[in-house]
Amino acid sequence: MQKQESPTYLKAITIRDTSDVHSIKEDIKKGMILILRVTPLAQKDVEQLRKVVEELYSIAKTADADIARLGEERIIVAPSNIRIWKPEYDLK
Amino acid sequence: MQKQESPTYLKAITIRDTSDVHSIKEDIKKGMILILRVTPLAQKDVEQLRKVVEELYSIAKTADADIARLGEERIIVAPSNIRIWKPEYDLK
Repeated sequence: MQKQESPTYLKAITIRDTSDVHSIKEDIKKGMILILRVTPLAQKDVEQLRKVVEELYSIAKTADADIARLGEERIIVAPSNIRIWKPEYDLK
Repeated sequence: MQKQESPTYLKAITIRDTSDVHSIKEDIKKGMILILRVTPLAQKDVEQLRKVVEELYSIAKTADADIARLGEERIIVAPSNIRIWKPEYDLK
């Protein structure tokens, strides 16, 4: 059992502040799948949200991770061994 | 490149009708990660939604997949090589 490949973690969390990006970056580098709820930040400060999203896209690019919007509320980040299937018409 | 392990797909779709469960079952059996939006069904017919969710839990159990609620709108299903990390206080 212990020789099994380590599992990929899928973590669903909420971004409440720009300072949350640091730990998210670590999780992305660890190869986790992240589902990030951005609504509280969007309600607090749209400009901060814009910066956080930009930073996430940049981190994902560097880490060779895939990133996609999930409706209005969430963002998905997935490592390179996971392919995000995006039915554009249906992502709401 | 072709000898690489095949990637895991993450698919975000909307359940609009009980008949959608069939193709979802196939996707679960293929080992896909699914993020299923259930809101339209919830608005249409709560009893149908209850049945669909029950069926999904049963399918996931049979396929050794993990399943979790993601806020009010979505359900996550993940194959056994993916671990859903559930911070209960933060899944909304």
